[in-house]
Amino acid sequence: MRVGCIGLGPMGVAMARRLLLAGHDLTVWNRTAEKGDDLVGEGARRAPSPEDAAAHAEVVVTSVADDAALESVTLGQHGLADALSRGCVHVSTSTVSPALVQRLAVAHAERGQGFVSAPVLGRPPAAANGKLFVMAAGPPDAVEQARPVLEAIGQRLFVVGERAAQANLVKLACNFLIFSTIEQLGEVFALAEKGGVDRARVFEVLTESFFGAPVHRNYGQLILERAYNPPGARVTLGMKDTRLLLDAAEALSVPLPLASLLRDRFIAAVARGEKDYDFTVIAQQAAEAAGLLP
Amino acid sequence: MRVGCIGLGPMGVAMARRLLLAGHDLTVWNRTAEKGDDLVGEGARRAPSPEDAAAHAEVVVTSVADDAALESVTLGQHGLADALSRGCVHVSTSTVSPALVQRLAVAHAERGQGFVSAPVLGRPPAAANGKLFVMAAGPPDAVEQARPVLEAIGQRLFVVGERAAQANLVKLACNFLIFSTIEQLGEVFALAEKGGVDRARVFEVLTESFFGAPVHRNYGQLILERAYNPPGARVTLGMKDTRLLLDAAEALSVPLPLASLLRDRFIAAVARGEKDYDFTVIAQQAAEAAGLLP
Amino acid sequence: MRVGCIGLGPMGVAMARRLLLAGHDLTVWNRTAEKGDDLVGEGARRAPSPEDAAAHAEVVVTSVADDAALESVTLGQHGLADALSRGCVHVSTSTVSPALVQRLAVAHAERGQGFVSAPVLGRPPAAANGKLFVMAAGPPDAVEQARPVLEAIGQRLFVVGERAAQANLVKLACNFLIFSTIEQLGEVFALAEKGGVDRARVFEVLTESFFGAPVHRNYGQLILERAYNPPGARVTLGMKDTRLLLDAAEALSVPLPLASLLRDRFIAAVARGEKDYDFTVIAQQAAEAAGLLP
Amino acid sequence: MRVGCIGLGPMGVAMARRLLLAGHDLTVWNRTAEKGDDLVGEGARRAPSPEDAAAHAEVVVTSVADDAALESVTLGQHGLADALSRGCVHVSTSTVSPALVQRLAVAHAERGQGFVSAPVLGRPPAAANGKLFVMAAGPPDAVEQARPVLEAIGQRLFVVGERAAQANLVKLACNFLIFSTIEQLGEVFALAEKGGVDRARVFEVLTESFFGAPVHRNYGQLILERAYNPPGARVTLGMKDTRLLLDAAEALSVPLPLASLLRDRFIAAVARGEKDYDFTVIAQQAAEAAGLLP
Repeated sequence: MRVGCIGLGPMGVAMARRLLLAGHDLTVWNRTAEKGDDLVGEGARRAPSPEDAAAHAEVVVTSVADDAALESVTLGQHGLADALSRGCVHVSTSTVSPALVQRLAVAHAERGQGFVSAPVLGRPPAAANGKLFVMAAGPPDAVEQARPVLEAIGQRLFVVGERAAQANLVKLACNFLIFSTIEQLGEVFALAEKGGVDRARVFEVLTESFFGAPVHRNYGQLILERAYNPPGARVTLGMKDTRLLLDAAEALSVPLPLASLLRDRFIAAVARGEKDYDFTVIAQQAAEAAGLLP
Repeated sequence: MRVGCIGLGPMGVAMARRLLLAGHDLTVWNRTAEKGDDLVGEGARRAPSPEDAAAHAEVVVTSVADDAALESVTLGQHGLADALSRGCVHVSTSTVSPALVQRLAVAHAERGQGFVSAPVLGRPPAAANGKLFVMAAGPPDAVEQARPVLEAIGQRLFVVGERAAQANLVKLACNFLIFSTIEQLGEVFALAEKGGVDRARVFEVLTESFFGAPVHRNYGQLILERAYNPPGARVTLGMKDTRLLLDAAEALSVPLPLASLLRDRFIAAVARGEKDYDFTVIAQQAAEAAGLLP
Repeated sequence: MRVGCIGLGPMGVAMARRLLLAGHDLTVWNRTAEKGDDLVGEGARRAPSPEDAAAHAEVVVTSVADDAALESVTLGQHGLADALSRGCVHVSTSTVSPALVQRLAVAHAERGQGFVSAPVLGRPPAAANGKLFVMAAGPPDAVEQARPVLEAIGQRLFVVGERAAQANLVKLACNFLIFSTIEQLGEVFALAEKGGVDRARVFEVLTESFFGAPVHRNYGQLILERAYNPPGARVTLGMKDTRLLLDAAEALSVPLPLASLLRDRFIAAVARGEKDYDFTVIAQQAAEAAGLLP
Repeated sequence: MRVGCIGLGPMGVAMARRLLLAGHDLTVWNRTAEKGDDLVGEGARRAPSPEDAAAHAEVVVTSVADDAALESVTLGQHGLADALSRGCVHVSTSTVSPALVQRLAVAHAERGQGFVSAPVLGRPPAAANGKLFVMAAGPPDAVEQARPVLEAIGQRLFVVGERAAQANLVKLACNFLIFSTIEQLGEVFALAEKGGVDRARVFEVLTESFFGAPVHRNYGQLILERAYNPPGARVTLGMKDTRLLLDAAEALSVPLPLASLLRDRFIAAVARGEKDYDFTVIAQQAAEAAGLLP
């Protein structure tokens, strides 16, 4: 299948490589062109513009940082919406607002194009190993058309609904579960430490009994080791996703008291000068409120 | 080994049966004697008093409802502390306050007896199948002496420290993780439902990606099915354990904002007339605050 | 002084009338022209457009609903920024975002015009009686120039800083104190009622001891009487102002846990179908969580 | 009237002096006898025991630190309940639990004595000037009998109900309003400071507009000046009263989310080593979470 990939950050590169490995005919574009050099060496074609990447693709995959970037690359000047052929499909893998993907769905539909929102769960190393979880939503025919791409970029595809926004709502809910699990573990570790219980022993008890999911193991390990720097994913990212979640929940009139607590944690982390630390650093706040030194 | 079992509620009976199966010589006592009938049929001896159950035991295991019951059965008139021989060990499996077990540890030590606090994680059906997790703390020699009992009652023994209170702190932390996971899932399900995403689909995405621990599967299933009645474990139990946690944390000067939120959920559940529902019913509050009908 | 008034909702009309009473030469404009009929009868001139209202004014006062309206009437087509003469001053009395007024300050400065942000504290009946509190910020010369207007519209003028945004920050803080006092009183009344203490007696004790400020008396009375409908000011207004506060606080990296709680209360109120009730209705949630019937 | 005063801390001494000034015939007792020296110099008689202070009194007033002290002085060995004559009245002015005063009410009634719970609002300097607010509850005849005493010790007497516990519930609610107002102001001052608005200017705007009650002026001034040490009333006192409130609210099944937040603030203050600072120091936490240096 002819696939265009727009946005070659660590996630974008990893997904593009999975598509090459799966035998797709790949065209890539990134604002900073050098980010695509390795992929070109592995057989991808470099496009001079997003328009061009879209023009020859049956499916174009975008992986960009935020709402503004996705809106610009899709609906801006030289954007892919004006270049993609009728009947072709835009697959957006970014964690952006449900509101934006719903607008994009309308814009593509007006042009006779398909749109599938398919945010992914997992960090870049998981992406490189094809271990992402993909949660997709869109009209069934567009999802079917993009299925070879959606299945190639991750280990498991979940189709969660027929409206694009639904995929983003589920993805934001997953991130919320990650952040709030960090808060849970931060509180538990602070309590254990002040009670004189070895934190590593607590981690073992938890992860080998009822609390052994990847969310517990992966983030618990980082908190245990206070491995906040260099970051796997930054506080600013956690802040952004929590804001997107709260905005989406407000639009649906759903109070989320845990998410409000997380919002305060992220804001405090920024105020404390930790914006470029790994977002698990918010666990530190429970420890410090308990009088444990940083 | 000669083992006495005091307290034959659903958990106590299940643990006693595991001890019989493991070949121990068992004496049982319960305030309401009939609760021990089945065990007697299976080979246990019935004691006329807790004193008697303790008098002939090398290890006496207690499984009672709360602090008051444990204090009474141990230090009250005809309590086991006065009956247990020097060099023998009291294993307390109840989820009670760290403060109480620390007092019991002192009382037993003064009498030349051992004391191991070993609260268990799991509901009665798990106990019946030997699937409990046992988190024990106490002086190493007492733990070693009680080890055959500790290993028989569950699938896995974790020794978390040398002070009895530490086991209870870890157990209360586990229960806190259960309750706060219920809150997480309650908020996520409310959001999904108002966003038009099928709750069962969300449950599948979560449990088959990053959030597949028993805590997610077991409690998520109950919330999904709104299976709050009859209860597996009641709101009153969740309220009690949250109060124990907050008291222990206050004594150690550890603020636990998530636990404060859970406390409010449990109090509201009681106020709403749900005290005898399964404690997962607190997930319902996020749904109703979002305007979803009960 | 030649004054233009743009925006003739209940607040705008009341302030315009104060300006007439103070002897100013008044021109008025409102999207729905009839709202100005009474003022015209009292001596104001009706302008055909905001541009026109601004063109002949030394000071133009705007009183509009929200950020979008203020931006449109100021910087939109036929907006007042293009019509106001150099050296004249725009006084914005709306409770809008600090971010917007800062942008307006720049836009006016670029045109050689003054800009004073001067949001007001008080509901329309207070405005009609000249009882508003005015909190103004802007360059000192602009404030001086507008002073006769600023002093005419309220009982008391506070100049809080030289940057327009500062006035809005203080105003949002005042509204936050109002909303959080409603929450305080809602919790106290729920507790009193369940403890069998007469709520009116509690209200008397509070307001005649340490808690007798207008914020306690005015809002406490509404809660006491459950006088939520018809509204003096709506839930949607409380929601909007809380969102503005949280956004401003996030931009300054200030966590506000009380404001997060209020946000959840307002969202729940909307979810419960109370968006057009008086915003004191959020006090009802504490009562209902305590099992008191609505 | 013959009045006995038991407990001569700063509050007790101030109230005793008001009673002397009002012409009552006073007997005083305190564990540390010297605390009564000044009063004896001013005309009071010193009693050798609480029993003795009670034995000759028509009304005995207690002012002690906490539940344990009040229970001991009333029902302990040589306690006043056994010494007070039938038909005489015990007036308890301490801020203790509603549960305890309810038990004392029963114990006194069984002895044919009256009991009025009458906690007071105000700090020692206010007490010295007769500026306390007294909130009393008890059987009407006991209240009438004690009225000359109740009216002498403060500026204003509020009778809030016929069950002793009700007075304590109202008093705890007042303290909750104080603590939560400190939190409100702490958040507002943090926001203002980070927004570059002068905190003193904000304080002026607030207290001269809608927020000018004593609770705003008195505590706002302390926060403004960061006058946390020496303390007027300590963090430990705030912690105790918040615990009493939460326990009383739990017994009545009333969730109080603001009080839960305050509880966390007080626990963190203790963890930070601030237990002997003035309780307004909790306002500091909002400032530090916003990155403002202590």
